[in-house]
Amino acid sequence: MPQKPSIPKGTRDFGQQETAERNYIFDTIRSVFRTFGYAQIETPAMENLSTLLGKYGDEGDKLLYRILNSGDAFANIDESRPLASQVCEKGLRYDLTVPFARYVVQHQNELSFPFKRFQIQPVWRADRPQKGRYREFYQCDVDAIGSRSQLCELELIQIIDKVFEKLGVNVLIKINNRKVLTGLAEICGFPDKVVDITVAIDKLDKIGLDAVKEEMREKGLSDEAIAVLEPVLTLKGSNEVKLSVMRSIMGGSATGLKGLEELEELFGYISAAGIGTATEIDLSLARGLNYYTGAIFEVKALDWQIGSICGGGRYDNLTGIFGLPDMSGVGVSFGADRIYDVLKGLDKFPGDLRSSTRILFANMGPKELGYILPLASALRAEGISVEIYPDAAKLKKQFDFADRKTIPFLSITGENEMEQGSVNIKDLRSGEQKSFAKDDIKGMADWIR
Amino acid sequence: MPQKPSIPKGTRDFGQQETAERNYIFDTIRSVFRTFGYAQIETPAMENLSTLLGKYGDEGDKLLYRILNSGDAFANIDESRPLASQVCEKGLRYDLTVPFARYVVQHQNELSFPFKRFQIQPVWRADRPQKGRYREFYQCDVDAIGSRSQLCELELIQIIDKVFEKLGVNVLIKINNRKVLTGLAEICGFPDKVVDITVAIDKLDKIGLDAVKEEMREKGLSDEAIAVLEPVLTLKGSNEVKLSVMRSIMGGSATGLKGLEELEELFGYISAAGIGTATEIDLSLARGLNYYTGAIFEVKALDWQIGSICGGGRYDNLTGIFGLPDMSGVGVSFGADRIYDVLKGLDKFPGDLRSSTRILFANMGPKELGYILPLASALRAEGISVEIYPDAAKLKKQFDFADRKTIPFLSITGENEMEQGSVNIKDLRSGEQKSFAKDDIKGMADWIR
Repeated sequence: MPQKPSIPKGTRDFGQQETAERNYIFDTIRSVFRTFGYAQIETPAMENLSTLLGKYGDEGDKLLYRILNSGDAFANIDESRPLASQVCEKGLRYDLTVPFARYVVQHQNELSFPFKRFQIQPVWRADRPQKGRYREFYQCDVDAIGSRSQLCELELIQIIDKVFEKLGVNVLIKINNRKVLTGLAEICGFPDKVVDITVAIDKLDKIGLDAVKEEMREKGLSDEAIAVLEPVLTLKGSNEVKLSVMRSIMGGSATGLKGLEELEELFGYISAAGIGTATEIDLSLARGLNYYTGAIFEVKALDWQIGSICGGGRYDNLTGIFGLPDMSGVGVSFGADRIYDVLKGLDKFPGDLRSSTRILFANMGPKELGYILPLASALRAEGISVEIYPDAAKLKKQFDFADRKTIPFLSITGENEMEQGSVNIKDLRSGEQKSFAKDDIKGMADWIR
Repeated sequence: MPQKPSIPKGTRDFGQQETAERNYIFDTIRSVFRTFGYAQIETPAMENLSTLLGKYGDEGDKLLYRILNSGDAFANIDESRPLASQVCEKGLRYDLTVPFARYVVQHQNELSFPFKRFQIQPVWRADRPQKGRYREFYQCDVDAIGSRSQLCELELIQIIDKVFEKLGVNVLIKINNRKVLTGLAEICGFPDKVVDITVAIDKLDKIGLDAVKEEMREKGLSDEAIAVLEPVLTLKGSNEVKLSVMRSIMGGSATGLKGLEELEELFGYISAAGIGTATEIDLSLARGLNYYTGAIFEVKALDWQIGSICGGGRYDNLTGIFGLPDMSGVGVSFGADRIYDVLKGLDKFPGDLRSSTRILFANMGPKELGYILPLASALRAEGISVEIYPDAAKLKKQFDFADRKTIPFLSITGENEMEQGSVNIKDLRSGEQKSFAKDDIKGMADWIR
């Protein structure tokens, strides 16, 4: 009995249309990365589990796909120890960040630092599949490692600006700095409450100032501490105003002042470079708080309701775990699937992605084929995508084929045209028909293109 | 203690240079596929093991990478049955052919037949790693399914011709037909000896006619049978001569005559279309003999010693196993890794793949940055890849950076230039230096590009 074919839950087939649309996103992102001198690298889908385990927390470890050792994986196992760790040595890449750190350490002697790389590859997570969450999906990561300059942060903001300008999506770039958050916790006397304070700030819009204060009290902050933070909780206005308010209260924290200095330097660069996209200091940005040590970024689409479509930040010790300390880097990751949803929702994909084939030559039989084949080759040499219907089927069937594939031009070349040395081409959208001399390849190409 | 980072045996990291070179191959192949109206699709890396098992023979089953079920894979196992089959439901794609067949059957109602697709994705095999053989490698497959027309075969030959013309590699396309081989076995009275006869023909150049005849005798062929085959064994000359010799002896086999008819039709199309690449009938081509039912192709590089760099053929029942019978198709697969080796060996990669960055602006400090940042943005808008050194490091260090990355142009803009409103750019290869007005973005771009 034949198998009913299916694919694993949480994975997807991409047909012609989706692949073309996804490639449009990847190509756009790639072309922007390149104008900033970032180098594309690729790492294997399979990494040693020793590289992956312990890098994503206990929850992450559970979400790793493990690959059964080849050969007889179950020979010589010790039943008293956990089996999974004995029969699997490799796993599928969970993100592009850990493989990047591994790559930098492994190839450190071949690389020129600061090393600017990008990577567009799939990752796998054994997550519960749900709307918009997949078990195999692409990440588009861009990182600069080996420099602490805020120019690297600027470049990422410029990249985000250009990518979404090219894609035609209005976005807001939110910027935070981990050192500022540390500073706030320090000046109010609760240096271990960074997360609680950030979470509380995040709720301000939803629950209001009084409820946020109450929550801070519940988390153990004193009234004095809350009074110190109050100017920050109610922070409004331009980035300059926000920076100046924070500076007025940050005196007691060297780390906080360093964070403000970084933000000021970055906003200075942003104004010097001239960025079209709005940038906004947002102290509630807590993304990857255990991980980032400086700037934190998040990008929101303004005209479509969806979570963050790009995000990242600066990390000071990504490569330490693999034996290369003191390598500061900064990077962002573009979420291809969400960006896809935004472009689809806003109808922002270019129309000409729909069919790659520009013209179909109907197949009228062997004699006509001898006339058509060199023509088709000549048009392809002009870069035109050409199909010849493979069988001399009924014209109705060939028409339907062109229609279903939305091929815009059709040529039916029969004995008459062969006698006259001409080619008839019809624009199936407008109905317009033109006749060309069969040597007028340029003329045909210009019309069809 | 930090881990010493490594990657699994048989897998590879691709640095900037290799990724650029590999992309050049993929982009070239993709652009040719497109001009023939083939649609790109993508399928997931993970397939259900039920889709993969039994499709590649016992040996192939052993080479599949199995993925441990997520959650507790070892809960509720029956120790008396093989463990691997109980704890793994998914595997990594072994080739692109079976996923394609699965895709066609699963999506048959969304597709227009004949369906022409291409697919460029990695595959995984738990093979013993050795020189030129990897556990993760890319395949570039192009197939047309749903037509028996020899025009499909022609298109693949045209695609091969164009791909290697664009890559600058001289190749020979060898063509065989499974039905002709069946016919030869039939007319000599040993219909079950197709493989033995093909293998014997393959050895002719190496061991000579007498030894081949002896081998056929050992395989159980009678002297009469060998006498019937002798005109084929010594077949020389043009494709037309070969076809006519075979036609003269093939009368007794309807299948063989059908095979000759297919070859004749195909060569008729080849001559009508005008193919630059040499095409040659080669009866020793036994590639995928259990699998192909018509044309068989193999491509050899003429100026570089390596195995086949592209191959394929026609199959009549690829999708039958998944419940869709009578779908004839034909396809070829380009071996990206071998093509890479050929291009490397013949030094055929374009030189400008080496560095993506065209110009480095030296970083002279914050004041100069304000002058440089808008310039860099304007040049990027012209499509130029621009880097600014992130730190105001010693000039020597910045120079070395440009040198190691083979960035061709360097601009050092200091107080003098700022006063004059000019930009100095040096061609690091020739030493030539030019000064531009800072608004002359076009002038700079034209020189740097």
